[in-house]
Order: sequence, then structure tokens, then C-alpha cells
Amino acid sequence: MTVSDDVRDRVTASFARQGLMRHLGARLTLVEPGRVHIELAARPEVTQQHGYIHAGATSAVADSAGGYAGLTLFPPDADVLTVEYKLNLLAPAKDRIEAVGTVLRSGRTLTVCRLEVYDADRRLVAAGQQTLIRIAAAPGEPA
Amino acid sequence: MTVSDDVRDRVTASFARQGLMRHLGARLTLVEPGRVHIELAARPEVTQQHGYIHAGATSAVADSAGGYAGLTLFPPDADVLTVEYKLNLLAPAKDRIEAVGTVLRSGRTLTVCRLEVYDADRRLVAAGQQTLIRIAAAPGEPA
Amino acid sequence: MTVSDDVRDRVTASFARQGLMRHLGARLTLVEPGRVHIELAARPEVTQQHGYIHAGATSAVADSAGGYAGLTLFPPDADVLTVEYKLNLLAPAKDRIEAVGTVLRSGRTLTVCRLEVYDADRRLVAAGQQTLIRIAAAPGEPA
Amino acid sequence: MTVSDDVRDRVTASFARQGLMRHLGARLTLVEPGRVHIELAARPEVTQQHGYIHAGATSAVADSAGGYAGLTLFPPDADVLTVEYKLNLLAPAKDRIEAVGTVLRSGRTLTVCRLEVYDADRRLVAAGQQTLIRIAAAPGEPA
Repeated sequence: MTVSDDVRDRVTASFARQGLMRHLGARLTLVEPGRVHIELAARPEVTQQHGYIHAGATSAVADSAGGYAGLTLFPPDADVLTVEYKLNLLAPAKDRIEAVGTVLRSGRTLTVCRLEVYDADRRLVAAGQQTLIRIAAAPGEPA
Repeated sequence: MTVSDDVRDRVTASFARQGLMRHLGARLTLVEPGRVHIELAARPEVTQQHGYIHAGATSAVADSAGGYAGLTLFPPDADVLTVEYKLNLLAPAKDRIEAVGTVLRSGRTLTVCRLEVYDADRRLVAAGQQTLIRIAAAPGEPA
Repeated sequence: MTVSDDVRDRVTASFARQGLMRHLGARLTLVEPGRVHIELAARPEVTQQHGYIHAGATSAVADSAGGYAGLTLFPPDADVLTVEYKLNLLAPAKDRIEAVGTVLRSGRTLTVCRLEVYDADRRLVAAGQQTLIRIAAAPGEPA
Repeated sequence: MTVSDDVRDRVTASFARQGLMRHLGARLTLVEPGRVHIELAARPEVTQQHGYIHAGATSAVADSAGGYAGLTLFPPDADVLTVEYKLNLLAPAKDRIEAVGTVLRSGRTLTVCRLEVYDADRRLVAAGQQTLIRIAAAPGEPA
């Protein structure tokens, strides 16, 4: 399935405004209805003390993947905020990770997403779940 | 209460090896037995699409604060890994945040920490809970 | 601090309608603004396979304690639903537990509570966090 | 896939010792390697204040389903404890629920399970994730 150009533009524009994603070097690699992928290459800038990708970097891309997966199903005048999420770190990742956010349930107010993060060998390195809230798009900002 | 010089040195050295903490501009501001504070100043590099501190950056410092809080209570030959954590984002933060990790229960294998993040006005902006596992320090690394 | 008679009546009446609380033998022992205690005595009916109180029973009273803590701060025409919660089981409990729900943040739509469960020796046996949503009271039901 | 008779016997015997499962009227309906189903029929004894199945009852069967899913992959001399879990309640359930526990990762010490709960119409009514720890079977108890 594909998203409309409008939805793709909104997700892409919002992602581009996330200073953290740019600072980490994360890239948006897939935008489908209810599903978004974000990739992060390992660099010294994203590591923890043993040289693996830091749980915080893993979380950041997982959280964004889920948030944008939710946003693909929202009306044009709505925006998304993370209410909470939970993430299990299953295995250390060294090279490159891909975070997959998938909408489990999209409600009028709340959306729940599954979060999965894979390494370059398609091994599941983190798994979690996220609650999002739909808000009115901030005035003065692109919807 | 204060930690021994040895514990402080281990925490400080481990923190210094976390490329992500340096990349985000995070600073270790308190190390006590079972309690660690980490501060993060807002910069464009740590924002989400509305200019607030990204949930991923908030998580990164909260996760590290909890992990090091656990480490302060470990024997010298042990290291720490995050098993999982859950974080609620309670309010947007604009200026500066301080993550506080506090050990709730320190067991032989597992440690559970409370995670709290405050903004510059001492308002609670995120709250969560984390499970850590104690592992043998990686060979060839400083304990 | 004390709650108004009206709030106490609403919490007490709602608790009395929870068939599960009655079936488990749980008792409402404290209702304060933003804080509720529920007690559960150990009986064979609430155990897991080793004779300890089942995580599900612990969760049930923790979830209700948090939900009612949230409800104490709601307007009269509102009711509460659990969005999600996370609970760490810290130690087995044998005799009697007391669940403490405490509001960390009460918003217009969402409320976040801390969940703590103590055993008869005031040892923390479970700790967690919960997200609640405020809804309109169901028509035809007491507010 | 099927489990060995030995594994099935261990799961069935352990389930039978869970006083809470019996008290709630829960039934073990599927035991496969890394996957267990538990069914719960709605009765007044398992409801919350609006007559829906209580989040605590939903959690109890979800937690047990995950725990036993983990146990199916353990060696005979091991037993399982829940470290923590997180559950989102997605929709109210009225009639009958089926909890599905599925192992995402089975490690030497820790196991992580996905928790899903469906209603009679196969609608997802709750979803979550659980961390288990493998322990030595209690002495004097059937392994």
C-alpha cells in the first residue's frame, strides 16, 4: 500500500524538522499507511560505553518510526505527540539498525504502535510498544 | 551520601566512553550511591519537529542516568546493560532537562530504577521505570 | 488532605461495582486527593504456581488503585479508563499486599500515576506506572 | 509445531497450581513451543465498574500466557518468574477473551514475550510485552 503524496510530504517535512534525527544521521526509508521505517548507521556519535549503539539512539529512531506511522493515518490538520513507550533491548547492535513502527490501533484520540528494531542481519535487537496522542497541528507550522 | 572514589571513577570513565552522551552534549552532574543525575541543554541538535527536546534525547539521558545509578551499587568487576524501560512524556521541555535515575531495588542479577526528568523550572517532564542487568565487565575494558 | 464526600462516594460506589475486586477480596483502604490504597489478603484463590500472590492479582489491585487515584481529581461527570500500565514485580509476596496509586500528572485528557505495591513488612514488592484517560461518565450510570 | 509430552505436562501442572487462574475461570487452550493461549469467559466476577472485563483480569491471563510460553522453551529443571510487563488496553471486552503469549527472544537468563489479547470477534483488545527470568525450579516442587 502507498500513502498519498500529501501524507508523504507531511511526514517527510516533519522528519526534516527533527534536529535530533539529523544530528544522529537517521534516514526515513519507508512511509506506508500505518507503517514507517527509519534507518540509523552506527557511528561513534551514537554509541554507549562498549561501542554498541546506545539504547537512547535506538529509542530515538524507534520512537520516531512509531510516531510517524501514527501520523500517516491522521487527518491533515492533526499532529502527533508521544504519550509513552516501552522498549526491550534484546541484543547489542553494531553496524546499522532499522526501526519499524507499525500501528496496532488508531483511535480518535490515542494510537498504539508496535516498535521493532532490526540490525543489518535482520535480527530483532529491540522490541516495544508506544502510545501516541493526536493533537491539533501547531498554528503557524506546516500541518 | 557519597560514593567511593573508585565508583565515581568507574561511572565517569564509562560515561566518557558513551559517544552518544558527548554527541548530545549531556553532562554527568551528580553521582551518589543508587542515584545519578545527567543534564542536557536544549540545542537544535536534540529537538523534535516542534522545537521541543525530542523524546529520544530525553530517553537517552534518562536511560543513562538509570544505568549509572545501578552501576554505583555494583561490585567493581561488573558492568550494566539496559534490559528495558518505559517512559511517559508528561510535558514538552524547551530549555534544559535534568534526568534523575534512582535505584528502587538492586538485586544480584536485576536492578530496577525509577526515571524522572525535570525541566529548568523543576517541573516533571518525563517519568518512567527501567530494568537493568548486571553483567561481567567486558574483558580488555576498564572495569 | 481529604477528599470531599462526593468524591469519596463516587470512588466507593465505583469500586463496589468492580466484580473482580470483590471476587479477589480486595478492600479500598484510603481515598485522598490523587492517592488511593487498596489492600489484598493472600488466599489460595489469588496465588500463582508457587503459592505467592499472582502477578495478575498484584496488577489488578495496582491498576485499580491508580485508576481511582486519578478519578479523585476528575470533575463529577467524568469517568476513568486505563490506557496502559507497566509493572515490575520486585519480590514475591505471601501474606497481604497494599497497592498505592499516586497521581504524578493530571491533565485534561490524560493522567499518569505511579503504582507501588507493598507487602505486610512494608517492603516494595511491585512498582510501575500507568496512563489513564478521562472519559464522559457512562449514561445511565451513577457519575 | 508441538511440544513434547513432558513440556505439556509441566505447563499443565503448573497452570493447575495457579489458584488465581482457577478462581477467575481461565482455561489453558493451546501449548506450542514458544506460544501459549489462555481463555477467560466474562462473568460478573471478572468485571470492572462498567461491566467490561477488568484490566486486572485481562492482565492476569496475558501474564500467565506469556510466562508459560517462555516455560515451554526452558529446560526441565527450570521455572519462570515475571520480571515486568506492559499492557495497553485497546478496547473493552464483554464476552470472552483469549490471551496469546509468544516468545520474541529466549535467552539463557531473560526471555521476552509479546502479549496479545483478543475478544470473541478476534478483535485485538489488549497488547503488550513482558520480560521473564528463568530460575531454578523450587526444591520439593515438581520441576
